[in-house]
Amino acid sequence: MISNLEVLLIPETLTSGQYATVYNFLSLVIAAQLFTALFLLISLPRILPRYRQAITVAIVVCGIAAYHYFRIFDSFKAAFGSESIGGTGDYVQVVGESFNEGYRYVDWLLTVPLLLLELIAVLALARKVQTGLILRLLPAAALMIILGYPGEISGDNTVRGIFGLLSTLPFLYILYVLFVQLTKSLGNQPASVRGTLSRLRFLLLLSWGVYPIAYLLPLLNIAGSDAWVFKQVGYSVADIIAKAVYALIIFYVARLKSYDDDPDFASRELSTEDAPAVSSK
Amino acid sequence: MISNLEVLLIPETLTSGQYATVYNFLSLVIAAQLFTALFLLISLPRILPRYRQAITVAIVVCGIAAYHYFRIFDSFKAAFGSESIGGTGDYVQVVGESFNEGYRYVDWLLTVPLLLLELIAVLALARKVQTGLILRLLPAAALMIILGYPGEISGDNTVRGIFGLLSTLPFLYILYVLFVQLTKSLGNQPASVRGTLSRLRFLLLLSWGVYPIAYLLPLLNIAGSDAWVFKQVGYSVADIIAKAVYALIIFYVARLKSYDDDPDFASRELSTEDAPAVSSK
Repeated sequence: MISNLEVLLIPETLTSGQYATVYNFLSLVIAAQLFTALFLLISLPRILPRYRQAITVAIVVCGIAAYHYFRIFDSFKAAFGSESIGGTGDYVQVVGESFNEGYRYVDWLLTVPLLLLELIAVLALARKVQTGLILRLLPAAALMIILGYPGEISGDNTVRGIFGLLSTLPFLYILYVLFVQLTKSLGNQPASVRGTLSRLRFLLLLSWGVYPIAYLLPLLNIAGSDAWVFKQVGYSVADIIAKAVYALIIFYVARLKSYDDDPDFASRELSTEDAPAVSSK
Repeated sequence: MISNLEVLLIPETLTSGQYATVYNFLSLVIAAQLFTALFLLISLPRILPRYRQAITVAIVVCGIAAYHYFRIFDSFKAAFGSESIGGTGDYVQVVGESFNEGYRYVDWLLTVPLLLLELIAVLALARKVQTGLILRLLPAAALMIILGYPGEISGDNTVRGIFGLLSTLPFLYILYVLFVQLTKSLGNQPASVRGTLSRLRFLLLLSWGVYPIAYLLPLLNIAGSDAWVFKQVGYSVADIIAKAVYALIIFYVARLKSYDDDPDFASRELSTEDAPAVSSK
């Protein structure tokens, strides 16, 4: 069963161009996550304490992603040896080694609930509303990932379809909470960040949309090494947008809210032209 | 004796699905412990100094666990080579290498007493009460682990049973102190955390309960590779709950107690809606 899967989902050879493409994209993700985490760590004192929970979670998310991409990178290098076939320069899958796609699920199981926590934390809502959102969104996110896994590791397209469908239910619930219930809370946010927060949900929808598409590729009978390379590149880009770019937008929102909450803080942090008038400095 | 033990307790082959499951769970524990430690390290300034001892101990516990899981992970990879048998994709135990279950005991010997110290430290009791609890709970915890070890490494079920029983005595004493003696101290805690602290003891009981069950599996003649995989997954999940999740709840308690102790601190850390009224900012 599992050995069928490997034949189905992982190509036996990659051209040197395909190998280099996957290699460079995996490395790009490591750099993006690691240095977004470092940037946010250094910038933590530059927002008010009440927004540091959101950014701390963002640092942890980018750190976890970097850790898993180091593992994925090693797994990729081990799975595709550098033997060339008859001098063609192609990379052949090493017998007995397989590329571990499971790391992605371990990563998502930890990071996807935390991504929603980032968003909830930066809103700095009343404790009761916040707890309600956490209790609804985080278990739904974990359930979405857990239900996807049996389909991902199955070589059977029916099993893949069923679990894909089951996994979509918590996803729709998350969208409902984000776009219907959260809209009420947006009205209490400062005018300067309302638009950004609203658009952030679309960024989330857009980047998360890549994962089901990659999941469905085998169902559509799209196979072969090109499809596999395309899937790895797609996951990599989606992970950069959903974690690093998303974290930077959350940081931007936290900065704007900090200025809005405390004019003293704004006058220290902003250039003299932009700073609001403060009575006593 | 030792080679008998290996035959008894460690399967000779794992299917690639079983191998991937253990592999991914061990990696999940590393990520969970490492990034909980990082989260707490960054968040240390966000609680009052009097609760930082508890969180510092929590960081150390998660760090120690991450270290040992790196070792367990390497031991697992070394013990099960990647040779496939006749192209089945199964993983065979490498001759001369054995999976070192002993790392878990070294880990527990250090971390289990420290987990109790976390709980005592976050209570911030009077010095005399605190010293009394430490002198009773920490040696009992160490004794519990030490008495379990001779049973764990024995292939003889009688030896296993006797040491299992001896190890249960300090465990029952710990439960007595936590549920009878500690209940008196809970009355002095702020109302906002009393429920959480009380439930924390059940989380501890629940997660610690996994260890004796796994210990008893060979006594119940449950063997084979499925049982072994189940045991590794069980230990992994129990270690995440007993250390990382437990630490995050201790942090949450420390945050709530910090707000309760110092309204100025609360007004800086909380959203304007929740913050208590403070005369001068």
